[in-house]
Amino acid sequence: MSQSQTPAPALDSTKLKELKEKLITACHILDHEGVTDGYGHVSVRVPGADAFITIANVSPGNVTSDRLIMQDLDGNYLGGAKTPPNEWPIHACILKARPDVMAVSHTHSKWSTIFSVLPVKLKPMHHYGKFLSADGPPVYQGIGLVRTVERGNDLAKALGDGPVVLMRAHGDAVVGASVEQVIERTTRLAMLGEWNHLALLHGQPRYLTDEELKVYNEDQRFPMRGWEYYVSRLKKRME
Amino acid sequence: MSQSQTPAPALDSTKLKELKEKLITACHILDHEGVTDGYGHVSVRVPGADAFITIANVSPGNVTSDRLIMQDLDGNYLGGAKTPPNEWPIHACILKARPDVMAVSHTHSKWSTIFSVLPVKLKPMHHYGKFLSADGPPVYQGIGLVRTVERGNDLAKALGDGPVVLMRAHGDAVVGASVEQVIERTTRLAMLGEWNHLALLHGQPRYLTDEELKVYNEDQRFPMRGWEYYVSRLKKRME
Amino acid sequence: MSQSQTPAPALDSTKLKELKEKLITACHILDHEGVTDGYGHVSVRVPGADAFITIANVSPGNVTSDRLIMQDLDGNYLGGAKTPPNEWPIHACILKARPDVMAVSHTHSKWSTIFSVLPVKLKPMHHYGKFLSADGPPVYQGIGLVRTVERGNDLAKALGDGPVVLMRAHGDAVVGASVEQVIERTTRLAMLGEWNHLALLHGQPRYLTDEELKVYNEDQRFPMRGWEYYVSRLKKRME
Amino acid sequence: MSQSQTPAPALDSTKLKELKEKLITACHILDHEGVTDGYGHVSVRVPGADAFITIANVSPGNVTSDRLIMQDLDGNYLGGAKTPPNEWPIHACILKARPDVMAVSHTHSKWSTIFSVLPVKLKPMHHYGKFLSADGPPVYQGIGLVRTVERGNDLAKALGDGPVVLMRAHGDAVVGASVEQVIERTTRLAMLGEWNHLALLHGQPRYLTDEELKVYNEDQRFPMRGWEYYVSRLKKRME
Repeated sequence: MSQSQTPAPALDSTKLKELKEKLITACHILDHEGVTDGYGHVSVRVPGADAFITIANVSPGNVTSDRLIMQDLDGNYLGGAKTPPNEWPIHACILKARPDVMAVSHTHSKWSTIFSVLPVKLKPMHHYGKFLSADGPPVYQGIGLVRTVERGNDLAKALGDGPVVLMRAHGDAVVGASVEQVIERTTRLAMLGEWNHLALLHGQPRYLTDEELKVYNEDQRFPMRGWEYYVSRLKKRME
Repeated sequence: MSQSQTPAPALDSTKLKELKEKLITACHILDHEGVTDGYGHVSVRVPGADAFITIANVSPGNVTSDRLIMQDLDGNYLGGAKTPPNEWPIHACILKARPDVMAVSHTHSKWSTIFSVLPVKLKPMHHYGKFLSADGPPVYQGIGLVRTVERGNDLAKALGDGPVVLMRAHGDAVVGASVEQVIERTTRLAMLGEWNHLALLHGQPRYLTDEELKVYNEDQRFPMRGWEYYVSRLKKRME
Repeated sequence: MSQSQTPAPALDSTKLKELKEKLITACHILDHEGVTDGYGHVSVRVPGADAFITIANVSPGNVTSDRLIMQDLDGNYLGGAKTPPNEWPIHACILKARPDVMAVSHTHSKWSTIFSVLPVKLKPMHHYGKFLSADGPPVYQGIGLVRTVERGNDLAKALGDGPVVLMRAHGDAVVGASVEQVIERTTRLAMLGEWNHLALLHGQPRYLTDEELKVYNEDQRFPMRGWEYYVSRLKKRME
Repeated sequence: MSQSQTPAPALDSTKLKELKEKLITACHILDHEGVTDGYGHVSVRVPGADAFITIANVSPGNVTSDRLIMQDLDGNYLGGAKTPPNEWPIHACILKARPDVMAVSHTHSKWSTIFSVLPVKLKPMHHYGKFLSADGPPVYQGIGLVRTVERGNDLAKALGDGPVVLMRAHGDAVVGASVEQVIERTTRLAMLGEWNHLALLHGQPRYLTDEELKVYNEDQRFPMRGWEYYVSRLKKRME
């Protein structure tokens, strides 16, 4: 794969300015919506290159442009903040294994954590979950921070070609075709986790079947307003 | 019905100014109270005409006067923002079927969604639920967005002559004799959903019977302060 | 009782200024802490007189000095806002039956409502509940708003000589020796309701016995900081 | 132990300035994060002396530098606000029994209270709980405020050499090697309490074993960002 890629532009080049701003906004949204606390990170692939940008040892809610770092998919330093985040292999290994993925988030989401240690599964019961399969996301069982390429590859394997993998006693990793989609999915996953929890207390919920999910997924005019909405909430807070 | 109606005034006429402002406030309230997230809409019938005003492809919390649209009850464009909301038939079909209804809300309320996929029902257990019948609202089982008149009519049929219909894996539709009443009902429905959920975890709640609901409904001096209260909360936030 | 009392001073006399301000603060606290929504009221006895002050047809969170009303314990108008609140008999009848009581609150508290319709009881399981008896408050079963002296007397009877009565499908009434104590109790009751709810989901909680409650009640140096704390929270919001 | 210690510097000496500011910030964090309400306190050992600083009869969220008090480990007054907090023995007795401990918090945490009265235990199910043992913290069963050295010693005995002791019908005490660590642990404990509660409703959670906890504890590069993060949240509120 690497051969067909061009080298990444410099992290401070104007080509990457918009992408970096979007990444920072994405991190702030996850913090503001209560999905992340002091931990977690979002990454974005540098278009056309075997490289990605993420945040380095800072809480997502506090990230600023000088805390971004660029690495290649083997974890080599390409620019920005000097110290790579401990769990850079989450991003590098998933982006390497999944050329269709442009952005990855990793959070310690309360709801993902809870379903990661339970015998019951988190399944779509609202059309917000149409990006999931009817039987819900798999759970990565590994223990310890994902700080090696070996663990990163195990996690990518557990993710498979799906949108989400829960991580036992840890949280989740969510992927998407854009930063916006990853934020839409990460926030929806947390919402669905809560709704699954609530409904499961009253009996067997009527989940959406694969066929029913297909109806929603085939509807191309389905509005994707998560990004726009969460950006507006962030702005209202800062006013 | 159409024959006896006068044509709707222009959307920007002063006749509709107050109604439009009320509609915008209603949308902002549902967002501020956490009943809607990035989706959902409120509509209001244009008095004396076969037409209604709603919001076009914008989050309820972000709506401004230039994002309003006026349509007739068949969905024909009458003014305002160019693109009708995807689910305009929710409003058009209910307003056509129910001449007594002046306003409609559609939300993805967490609590409506949960009760829409469960074997247990959301029933009145506080006098805030006096607008419901003792056995609670029906559930529309249709899958897919309500983007056709056929589906809209199915939904209106499931609503019947009641105040509320839950929508499986989707949310709810609530109707009222005014924008204010729809907001009062929509917020109360969410509150009652939560309270039903909480109480049901501890055994069989003692619900209000139809006779007991009648006692509250016959009390004409019962104060309706929901609108006034929620408007004041909205203002406090914006101070 | 009435014979031994002096007439109430005028509602706008300087004698009542501080008491009125305290009453307004009390209402704002209940709103800010989420115990009341658009409904409910707090009342305070006029010292040495068969009279009380409460709020007239306004949400507790929105009350201002021109929305206060003074009535005697039979509900006769003594000054202030022209229209008595619908449920003035809650206050008048309790204050008449309980000379030891100086202030009363009535709320539609979520937690009181829930325990009002359940077979399980809300009991003290934290020393915050030391003002309750070990078997928790009784439930008034009456249906309909408490708008008559007959209903008010029934409610006062259900309260007995206790600090709290839950009201089925409606909320609660809480009494105290001062406005501050009523606020402390009303907020603690809501907190204990939530904690009872949570604990009960995991088995039989170990409640405090009457003897254990006595240990806390005999400790005269027990700090009562509820009022001071909630006032400070109110001020922080308004900064 | 006392013989080898030097006397404490004056409470208003510049040597203690930074420590006092940190203590105040710690209290404000616990209030802002909703772990404490009007009650509770944090204390810090005066480095190298048999003395500690805590807050005197004020809500943690309202503490200012003139409400700090310094005492020795027998409770003798050494400076600052005149009245010692009622429960000073919590701090004095634990600091005396545990020379490794530099800071102590005592809160009425909702989640600690709930698990203090239940047959089920609060156990680590996320790596945030790596400071706990696999079977979770013990529960001190004493009734009444901890206002005597005898009770303080009983509490210290129940704590043993662990990081946390729950206090029946009361809350918890948490210790650490620094103010920062105590805040990290106290906030994590509340978070884990909630997560335990949620997960336990759906069956037996898969907890972390002692061996798995060891994996996380041996990872010395594990980031401790709790303090930094909560300070930033406090600042955002005050902006």
